[in-house]
Amino acid sequence: MGNSKQILAVDHGRANPALAVAAEMRRGEDKLAELLNSREALLAEICRYLVNAGGKRLRPTFVLLVYRACGGGEARLDDAIDAAIAMELIHSATLLHDDIIDAGTVRRGKPSAFALYGLGPSLVAGDFLFARAFELCGRFEDELVRTAAQACIQLTEGEVMEGRLRRNAQVTLEDYLRVISRKTASLFHAGAKVAAQLAGASAAAPAMGRLGDAFGLAFQMIDDLLDVLGPEEKIGKPVGSDVRAGIPSLPVVLGVARDSRLSGLLGADGPGFERALELLRAPDVIERARAMAVEQVAIARETLTELKPSLYRDSLAVLIEEQVYREL
Amino acid sequence: MGNSKQILAVDHGRANPALAVAAEMRRGEDKLAELLNSREALLAEICRYLVNAGGKRLRPTFVLLVYRACGGGEARLDDAIDAAIAMELIHSATLLHDDIIDAGTVRRGKPSAFALYGLGPSLVAGDFLFARAFELCGRFEDELVRTAAQACIQLTEGEVMEGRLRRNAQVTLEDYLRVISRKTASLFHAGAKVAAQLAGASAAAPAMGRLGDAFGLAFQMIDDLLDVLGPEEKIGKPVGSDVRAGIPSLPVVLGVARDSRLSGLLGADGPGFERALELLRAPDVIERARAMAVEQVAIARETLTELKPSLYRDSLAVLIEEQVYREL
Repeated sequence: MGNSKQILAVDHGRANPALAVAAEMRRGEDKLAELLNSREALLAEICRYLVNAGGKRLRPTFVLLVYRACGGGEARLDDAIDAAIAMELIHSATLLHDDIIDAGTVRRGKPSAFALYGLGPSLVAGDFLFARAFELCGRFEDELVRTAAQACIQLTEGEVMEGRLRRNAQVTLEDYLRVISRKTASLFHAGAKVAAQLAGASAAAPAMGRLGDAFGLAFQMIDDLLDVLGPEEKIGKPVGSDVRAGIPSLPVVLGVARDSRLSGLLGADGPGFERALELLRAPDVIERARAMAVEQVAIARETLTELKPSLYRDSLAVLIEEQVYREL
Repeated sequence: MGNSKQILAVDHGRANPALAVAAEMRRGEDKLAELLNSREALLAEICRYLVNAGGKRLRPTFVLLVYRACGGGEARLDDAIDAAIAMELIHSATLLHDDIIDAGTVRRGKPSAFALYGLGPSLVAGDFLFARAFELCGRFEDELVRTAAQACIQLTEGEVMEGRLRRNAQVTLEDYLRVISRKTASLFHAGAKVAAQLAGASAAAPAMGRLGDAFGLAFQMIDDLLDVLGPEEKIGKPVGSDVRAGIPSLPVVLGVARDSRLSGLLGADGPGFERALELLRAPDVIERARAMAVEQVAIARETLTELKPSLYRDSLAVLIEEQVYREL
């Protein structure tokens, strides 16, 4: 364990998150493709449509980097790959279900599975992906399974809490942080913790859990910012989708606290929506949101000082930093 | 292992499925109530509304009877109770999702969770119940987890296959059997197999799997018959709901093969629906459907001869027979 006041020196020249675990990810992709098979062609088609639609594989890349950065070797690499893929399956299942709940018709610049295949098939395809994830990591040790299951429970709780706060001008920053801890960070938390434990680095597992939390929070904050800033080609969906749906995103939460004119515009359409978007793009809203994400990135980087220096650790640092760059 | 030509003598006077495992079920109910808790009050409310809405607890009763009939003692009783409860959780999750897919507004004589709480919350509540089931039985041995996960995968495949065959006058009896094997029997199959293995009766596990299949098929066939026969007070939903939704139920499949007038009436509303219901109530359709269920009951009973005689075995026999009686 390093000193937590230590400075993290990162070799930006050599560190590359995707390259560092490229071989592991190739095996993961093969496994993933296999798991999307079904005796029902429609199920396989929907799952492939979503899973192969240009997802960044951020979650499995993250899990595999944590595994390697924690010193994970060949002994449990298959398990680490399974954990990484299970995370992608669970994430994909929630995307399918989220688009149904929000009637989202565009995802990653293409028609959503919901728009293309309809409610019933896309709902069932989500259940299928959950079951596949369960099949995959259900064979891990009790504690790891419990960690994964609890992340799934938190995902649903985050979703319901978010629904409860829609179009609610009273929403606080504390509410917001609780929602995104559950709906986004919980899965990163579980993935990082499981990866550390599979790597045999139990002592580092709590720090890796904190890494997952901070990384997940930063990721979601930037996602929320991008929803307001766009452009559409970059975010793969219409600008302001969260705002239109009345979702208490970070700019919305910061905005309503600052400008009471926003209260009446939450979830508005037409000119009200345009006006809301304009108010949410106020420089101090954007700056404050960005600062909050940067703060989480710093916390995430800090946890890395608990690990021995390695190219994997540097690649993790770069992966984390990239989350903030992607908005600039 | 008994001789499969053996005659099953059942003490109908003493055998009572609910009483035989009453103490186990009480513990199961406590566990179930605990698992429905959530930090999000709405989630807990939806789950309680569904799970406590007069369900018969057929699946957990079945699993616990199989466990005891296979000689399961106190050593793994907690695990058997967890397996039983996991089955009820998975079943409940599918009910929540099915009502969304079919826009079903009535369930067990009351408004469905979908009608009462809306699409988003009831969809997420279903995911929550799946995650709880995963949490519960994810800690079993690899093989048992795989059995459970594969049942969940089959559930989704059965649902999609059924969707594919809706309002399809070409549907065959073979298609029908494949659909209900997946969407209904798979969970009974998995539950019975897991129960036998937890009881330490691995040799009986294949027979118990067959028991689950036959029992599940008989149960679904009678359910399909009841949809056509009613009355509404008995089935807890409008008579002919399956017919109206165009679901290829057993009477529908037998009916279209026999009477070409039905082809144009599948999924009809108004007078067409009434006419379809009338044609589906033709005595030879009803008789044939009933005979098919009775045949499965006989197969299920036959598998019981592989177990040592016991009050639990007799209670299982009674539970199976009751499935056919409930239609008379």
